[in-house]
Amino acid sequence: MPSQRLLYLSGVSPFRRPKGTSSHTDGITVNKTTQTVESAAVGGVFHIEDVYPLIDGGRFPVKRIAGERVEVWADIYRDGHDVVSAALVWRRERDREWRREPMTHHSNDRWGGSFVPDQPGRYVYALEAWTDEFATWRRGFELKQKAGADVTLDAIEGAGMLTKALAGGQAATTVILKRCEDFLQTGEPAPLLSDELKHAMAVSQPRPDLTRSRLFPLMADRPRARNGAWYEMVPRSQAKTPGQHGTFRDCIARLPDIAGMGFDVVYLTPIHPIGRTNRKGRNNAVTAAEGDPGSPYAIGSSEGGHDAVHPELGTLQDFRDFIAACKQHEMEVALDFAVQCAPDHPWLKQHPQWFRRRPDGSMRYAENPPKKYEDIVNPDFSSEDAGALWNALRDVVLFWIDQGVNIFRVDNPHTKPFRFWEWLIHEIQIRHPDTIFLAEAFTRPKLMKGLAKLGFTQSYTYFTWRTHKWELEQYLIELTAYPERDFYRPNFFVNTPDILPFHLQTGETWMFKSRVALAATLSSTYGIYNGFELLEHEPIPGREEYLDSEKYEIKVRDWDKPGNIKPYIRDLNRVRRENAALQQISNLRFVPIDDGNVTGFVKESVDQTNSVAVAIALSSDVHEFWFPLGDFQVGPTGDRRHVAAVENLITGERYPVEWGGIRLRIDPARDPALLFRCLA
Amino acid sequence: MPSQRLLYLSGVSPFRRPKGTSSHTDGITVNKTTQTVESAAVGGVFHIEDVYPLIDGGRFPVKRIAGERVEVWADIYRDGHDVVSAALVWRRERDREWRREPMTHHSNDRWGGSFVPDQPGRYVYALEAWTDEFATWRRGFELKQKAGADVTLDAIEGAGMLTKALAGGQAATTVILKRCEDFLQTGEPAPLLSDELKHAMAVSQPRPDLTRSRLFPLMADRPRARNGAWYEMVPRSQAKTPGQHGTFRDCIARLPDIAGMGFDVVYLTPIHPIGRTNRKGRNNAVTAAEGDPGSPYAIGSSEGGHDAVHPELGTLQDFRDFIAACKQHEMEVALDFAVQCAPDHPWLKQHPQWFRRRPDGSMRYAENPPKKYEDIVNPDFSSEDAGALWNALRDVVLFWIDQGVNIFRVDNPHTKPFRFWEWLIHEIQIRHPDTIFLAEAFTRPKLMKGLAKLGFTQSYTYFTWRTHKWELEQYLIELTAYPERDFYRPNFFVNTPDILPFHLQTGETWMFKSRVALAATLSSTYGIYNGFELLEHEPIPGREEYLDSEKYEIKVRDWDKPGNIKPYIRDLNRVRRENAALQQISNLRFVPIDDGNVTGFVKESVDQTNSVAVAIALSSDVHEFWFPLGDFQVGPTGDRRHVAAVENLITGERYPVEWGGIRLRIDPARDPALLFRCLA
Repeated sequence: MPSQRLLYLSGVSPFRRPKGTSSHTDGITVNKTTQTVESAAVGGVFHIEDVYPLIDGGRFPVKRIAGERVEVWADIYRDGHDVVSAALVWRRERDREWRREPMTHHSNDRWGGSFVPDQPGRYVYALEAWTDEFATWRRGFELKQKAGADVTLDAIEGAGMLTKALAGGQAATTVILKRCEDFLQTGEPAPLLSDELKHAMAVSQPRPDLTRSRLFPLMADRPRARNGAWYEMVPRSQAKTPGQHGTFRDCIARLPDIAGMGFDVVYLTPIHPIGRTNRKGRNNAVTAAEGDPGSPYAIGSSEGGHDAVHPELGTLQDFRDFIAACKQHEMEVALDFAVQCAPDHPWLKQHPQWFRRRPDGSMRYAENPPKKYEDIVNPDFSSEDAGALWNALRDVVLFWIDQGVNIFRVDNPHTKPFRFWEWLIHEIQIRHPDTIFLAEAFTRPKLMKGLAKLGFTQSYTYFTWRTHKWELEQYLIELTAYPERDFYRPNFFVNTPDILPFHLQTGETWMFKSRVALAATLSSTYGIYNGFELLEHEPIPGREEYLDSEKYEIKVRDWDKPGNIKPYIRDLNRVRRENAALQQISNLRFVPIDDGNVTGFVKESVDQTNSVAVAIALSSDVHEFWFPLGDFQVGPTGDRRHVAAVENLITGERYPVEWGGIRLRIDPARDPALLFRCLA
Repeated sequence: MPSQRLLYLSGVSPFRRPKGTSSHTDGITVNKTTQTVESAAVGGVFHIEDVYPLIDGGRFPVKRIAGERVEVWADIYRDGHDVVSAALVWRRERDREWRREPMTHHSNDRWGGSFVPDQPGRYVYALEAWTDEFATWRRGFELKQKAGADVTLDAIEGAGMLTKALAGGQAATTVILKRCEDFLQTGEPAPLLSDELKHAMAVSQPRPDLTRSRLFPLMADRPRARNGAWYEMVPRSQAKTPGQHGTFRDCIARLPDIAGMGFDVVYLTPIHPIGRTNRKGRNNAVTAAEGDPGSPYAIGSSEGGHDAVHPELGTLQDFRDFIAACKQHEMEVALDFAVQCAPDHPWLKQHPQWFRRRPDGSMRYAENPPKKYEDIVNPDFSSEDAGALWNALRDVVLFWIDQGVNIFRVDNPHTKPFRFWEWLIHEIQIRHPDTIFLAEAFTRPKLMKGLAKLGFTQSYTYFTWRTHKWELEQYLIELTAYPERDFYRPNFFVNTPDILPFHLQTGETWMFKSRVALAATLSSTYGIYNGFELLEHEPIPGREEYLDSEKYEIKVRDWDKPGNIKPYIRDLNRVRRENAALQQISNLRFVPIDDGNVTGFVKESVDQTNSVAVAIALSSDVHEFWFPLGDFQVGPTGDRRHVAAVENLITGERYPVEWGGIRLRIDPARDPALLFRCLA
């Protein structure tokens, strides 16, 4: 459309201004290179407002899953009463060509449209609105004609519009020329009023007042970003002989067990060489004893840094073999990305300018006064050479991607600059849109949300400590409400190497089962840290930390220890895989259960073919309660029906739904959770 | 602060990038002059989010009253645990110098601050955040000292920070030098920990990570923008002899009557020469009879256009005399600004390119198919010469401002381009910040709100047709909620020359009183169109329009006609003037009245010295009901007390509040409204 001029809401004037016409910024000092008074910008013909979905006015990308439809809504209006058209335009961020979907007016100037980002990646979308001048003419013509007015001139005006049509392709042009000719030959307006011409003109006529909104970002992730069961393990603890350092070969030997439990992601704590200088001893002792392996988070030694493998684990090829073995078991590998360095990390010699020293020339170790972490130094993100540091860290991630890793669990991202993460994640995802970043930030709510907004695919949560019904439900409602649900993807870990919550410290089977059932059904992504399945629960007294933490020593476990809940976890993961409803989180809807220690909820899959109802006990006593299903319908749109029966997803038993619900009984000693499929 | 570098949220990289460092836009096609992928912009060190107040993310200005404090809130956070400082910076849009107010952290990373825009005008404000590095050092130092650690190096580091302090003025520099010297002489850290030094460093140290939000616009209006009683009149109908064309002298003679009723603004329908071509006759007849005066909205004739005065009204000097006379009565004049032209408006000859013609060369009259308005042509805002039209229209407004007019009621703004109004209002208000624009748009909700957002000071409303309790309360709650209350200032007209609503057509006194009491107390700005006080109510049968509308003929009325409600209006306006609580609208709080035909509410003034309770009957029967005041407190912050008594603002009678409320009786035949002052 050669005559089409794009107008931007905060953009240029809609027509050529004659000389001597002052613009709105007349007399106002505005430095265009640094800041503009945005409010005063003369907008386009249309107001495009209240756009959905949107994170912080479009500052941050909305997160969705590739292949799923994205609905977009906006208020779109202009002055007067002309016929308005609108379109949703979208493209991958790196592409030049826009794709285009029509938008439909619903009511009260609210318009809707949708598109499907088919591949994972960064997208942008925008809204366009323009006046359909021919349709406006036609509507007026028909009203006048109906009122018996003389429409001779109006017909000529309508025909005149045909001559200005310039785009729209061959078919439309043919229609327009034909109707124009028909009118000229007969003088009768009928040819101008055909629907065929209306459509041809809708795509062909100039759009001089086309207004485009600003661009809104969207990240379409692969499904694993939203759905997955994670198994965290410390690779050096996977040997079978006490005192022996585990290897990637030992890890490979463990995979059938992990895959047997139904996990999707095997997440390894850092696999890099561990520093020797100021190495920590067992239970975080300030000095290490002979043979103590040190913390894997003290990264780097003379044997290499972030792009090296700890020699005792094996070679880089062994690691690649491990990835391949995981793949055979249909599992992925997640690596830990921890930015800190041990004092003997190669970077301290290669790039001394990245590290700060004290007035006496000594190294500045990490600290959180009065605590000191002498086995770690943090690179200085504000050094004059930090640009090179940013690039080096990006190259570390690219290196592991080259080895086949697509998931990174990022250690303590909240203590590094936000703009670094925003840059890093963008740098990686424009090259490798499959890459998933999990933010391990246990900190203040706004910071955790801020990291999610700026690009982290998933985030750790407060779930680990939430045990009461009210706080669980309140927290889940917060996470699944808009806009949180569009940027914050929770990964519910029941425990971590750093966190043994108080409620697990008594080691009761029902509580371990209840916690893993909550994590696995409330959230579509969850994780356990190994040992959980064995009910490990010995704390440092009075603290929510493991005694004899394997962060500082090598463990060897009996993975088939009596009393383990591996079959229970296997069942949960099977149910998750078989029920698409559980592969989402924002579809969560709590139901009112008249028992303060039972939480109940329903979930339905995007395609409406699968609906699941869940009840989980939060205390050890036997619960009998009513599970209302009366206001819940299932099945495809147009044929929604009330739930007629439920089927127990573990036992296969079916129960009819009568009087709008079902009476349930939970004995946590047997199973604290009931999982049902809802049947129409 | 020479070393201070301002970082913008959507701005530049925080440090110099070394060569070869790719930026985040690497490989993405971005045309900087037209659009940027804003989401991908690397931000500053701080996230500054969820700013209050804000209209559409800062696209449109917040409206407030000059002299009143503006509270600003935002989430402000950065990575890590350093001590953060924040400031609110603000200035008039045209000024270069920022003014600065400290912000305070409340909880959960929420910060607050405030400023007072002292003069009417356009302002911008922004939020700044930076790390207080010295305070961070001091906090760590004290924690280490308390833990008994060796702090020798820490003290040297703290002292080293003193040498980098560069700004803050003489006093701060003196303190810093002194403390530095004390430390160097003694080696003791105590001088570094003095509060005096803490404050000196807070203002003096570099702020390398200073992050500034984008700029947010605010319009501070004069008080009349929010509060005023309007009296609309047609100047040619102010003569005393039937058939005689009224003049500005006649209008002046009417002022004691209008001022006596307590009005603040006298609003005149257009005062310009009226076209002769296609002039409309009485009752909107297509052809005028001999002597018919035509509609004042058909502006322009050989005698002049928008900057001329209709000769039969008098001279421009007469109009200026009228303004002066209003001023003596402490009233202002509002003029009608109607963009359309009569076919004999001088612009049609001077600027033929501003008007569209039909294929046969004839003039294109205004139309809303199938309706035609042959006495009017609309200038074409999309003509190639429209820039000159914009300027000419601006100059019309400037012309009347030069004559002393500061209030413009704009006719049908929703049928002209939004960007024109946004430009025009800005153009005028940067020169004359006292100017008030009232949007006469009776159209769809989004358009009415859109016009308010883009700059109209006040707006007409649906109040004119809202009669039921539920719809009145729902509408008022909508208008007084955030963000509407920060951009939409309602002007409640009970009638207009175009609208005689059905509920007034029976002419019942109680209904006229109820309507004007509702308008005058619910809204701080309201208006009547003359004749209302005389209970004029003759409609065109079946329509909400006046029969024999004075839009098309000259009227002469007996302004003291028996049965008039002038004393009632006078009382209402006196109560409004005496009670600051009624000079606002967003302070409205409905109370639950157990009568479906009585609405009750309370209002309190900004300074908390005045509180008013109002009950108004919406039906003619006698009402007895309970007015609850139990959860309502009055008086200054820190000494708030429950309402102990109320005083009738008309009769002066006092009643004690007992059992948390008061029993009231309304006999609409006497007075449908009860107005009370609340006493502590």
